[in-house]
Amino acid sequence: MPQPTRGFSASSPTSPLGLFHFVRRDPREDDVVIDILYSGVCHSDLHTARNDWGGTVYPTVPGHEIVGRVVAVGTGVTQFKVGDAVGVGCMVDSCQSCGACARGWEQYCERGMTGTYNSSDRVDGSPTQGGYAEHIVVRQEFVLKMPEGLDLKGAAPLLCAGITTWSPLRHWKVGPGSKVAVVGLGGLGHMALKLAKALGAEVTLFSRSAGKEDDAKRLGADRVVISTEKDQMKAVRGQFDLILDTVPYAHDLNPYTATLATNGTLVLVGFLGLQEPAVNTVPLILGRKSVAGSVIGGIAETQEMLDFCGQHGITSDVEMIAMQDINEAYERMLKSDVKYRFVIDMASLKQSA
Amino acid sequence: MPQPTRGFSASSPTSPLGLFHFVRRDPREDDVVIDILYSGVCHSDLHTARNDWGGTVYPTVPGHEIVGRVVAVGTGVTQFKVGDAVGVGCMVDSCQSCGACARGWEQYCERGMTGTYNSSDRVDGSPTQGGYAEHIVVRQEFVLKMPEGLDLKGAAPLLCAGITTWSPLRHWKVGPGSKVAVVGLGGLGHMALKLAKALGAEVTLFSRSAGKEDDAKRLGADRVVISTEKDQMKAVRGQFDLILDTVPYAHDLNPYTATLATNGTLVLVGFLGLQEPAVNTVPLILGRKSVAGSVIGGIAETQEMLDFCGQHGITSDVEMIAMQDINEAYERMLKSDVKYRFVIDMASLKQSA
Repeated sequence: MPQPTRGFSASSPTSPLGLFHFVRRDPREDDVVIDILYSGVCHSDLHTARNDWGGTVYPTVPGHEIVGRVVAVGTGVTQFKVGDAVGVGCMVDSCQSCGACARGWEQYCERGMTGTYNSSDRVDGSPTQGGYAEHIVVRQEFVLKMPEGLDLKGAAPLLCAGITTWSPLRHWKVGPGSKVAVVGLGGLGHMALKLAKALGAEVTLFSRSAGKEDDAKRLGADRVVISTEKDQMKAVRGQFDLILDTVPYAHDLNPYTATLATNGTLVLVGFLGLQEPAVNTVPLILGRKSVAGSVIGGIAETQEMLDFCGQHGITSDVEMIAMQDINEAYERMLKSDVKYRFVIDMASLKQSA
Repeated sequence: MPQPTRGFSASSPTSPLGLFHFVRRDPREDDVVIDILYSGVCHSDLHTARNDWGGTVYPTVPGHEIVGRVVAVGTGVTQFKVGDAVGVGCMVDSCQSCGACARGWEQYCERGMTGTYNSSDRVDGSPTQGGYAEHIVVRQEFVLKMPEGLDLKGAAPLLCAGITTWSPLRHWKVGPGSKVAVVGLGGLGHMALKLAKALGAEVTLFSRSAGKEDDAKRLGADRVVISTEKDQMKAVRGQFDLILDTVPYAHDLNPYTATLATNGTLVLVGFLGLQEPAVNTVPLILGRKSVAGSVIGGIAETQEMLDFCGQHGITSDVEMIAMQDINEAYERMLKSDVKYRFVIDMASLKQSA
């Protein structure tokens, strides 16, 4: 029996998000029903609401940084019980049988992972709707356990911003002795600083403007390099084993590839599109350097990241908002006016008629 | 006491190569004096002779695929004796003390490796001159042992074309079960097919034109994909762990990145310059794919490659020419009219007055 719920949805690329009554499916055998407490606000939410990438099916309920409590479970659920604090990230399903899924890379599922929103349920084909809602129903394999003692408000952004930066840090084997640089200090960038530092790396922030030194150092940076200052960029040539580039628009990578060490990799995690201006292959070839991309992370890897954050007391720096503030929050996000992630207190939804 | 020798040099970007009398240094304690038997002809020779990359110091004697016999050794030479068949590749020295050299990556020496030609000797600052000559003097650390039983004519191109393709195959851990594709069937491409196949990979050649099937299969390809045929390209989407791109000019990488498997890497080994048209980051990010570069290989790695070729009977397919034919050979190279590498029989130099 379908479950009525309420959320905030966009009904067209240009309409503000507003109250939306819809239904969640009756839990299947392997489903977990989650009462949503907090929902982080990611740039992808905004891009999807406004159809910036094309393909948005309306109405759409964004939100894929979800923290809540289990309120019911299907008869086959063994991993979770009512009352558990749990999380849901950017995926709610995958084929579970391809080579990528077998290796725990559900985000790269060869048949395509099922997004938490703006996707189709693999069983009944219904549209998936995200975390800007009272509750959500997710199969147990895609539900994460929130570690004890971690503030749940600040933990919500770990489900996307956290894992998006954690996965490349782990894939490229960052640890003590690694030299890591982060380009951009937003939702992703501030998590990258915290996680790289906690993994034992020496951490540098590239910033286009001065004035971020204190905040960057508080978040885990050992130093800040102003990327528009040629002398500062020259001083770090050939230094970095890994650069996490979180910038969400096309930009020149050549000043950054010059700062990679031999064998170093620049990983794009923020920008989907044509990489312009052109990358010069000379430093790549003469230093065996790579330009790569990475998206979120697998489920086991996400649990690993959450557990690591639990052990190290790492959460996102968040500004709490009410559900009704979401449209204003989007405008502020576009101006980078947030330190460093908006999180919606879903209790506020009860105030919407 | 400097040793007079003869070679073929370019004296300006536009002049044909011609006979040139010059001197090699008197062997130092750690030097090996080599009588050159064969010298392969690489595109870099032509680019340097014509100053295509800038920075050519004239007169310049090209040639960095050198095979010969030891005719004298310095008092401190322990690894070689008179009569040994030896090789010299693209480097004749490096700092031997930086982090890269310590790891056997002399090609990425942090202080800059010394090129076999158009470089400066690290001891006396004299210009280095390459293998289009009667003999050469090289410090023992940069001299390779030619394996028994390998045809020395066909082995000369291993010193550049061989190691340039071997190094990325090894760095990205190609072996049985790997799916490798090669873009371009020239000097580098034909070696890539042979080496990848001998390492146990399943090997595909991407070619822009039909008609290369028989040759490609003889060289080691399991199949040929015509890159201008959309259906053929679609059929290999998401397939390859490693693509070795040997194309020596700017070209669109996007049709090829689409054929990389998750975690796959496209390695550029042939083109130095701006990568245009722009690379789309979408497949990189949504498949954790990389675009990388690689240049030649370290000395130990080159010896490993030569020994592997000795065990597997691998040499380059060569067309032998006389030294006096070099200018015509350059013109034919520019039209890709060679299968697959010109090698100069240096005995022909004796016919020049």
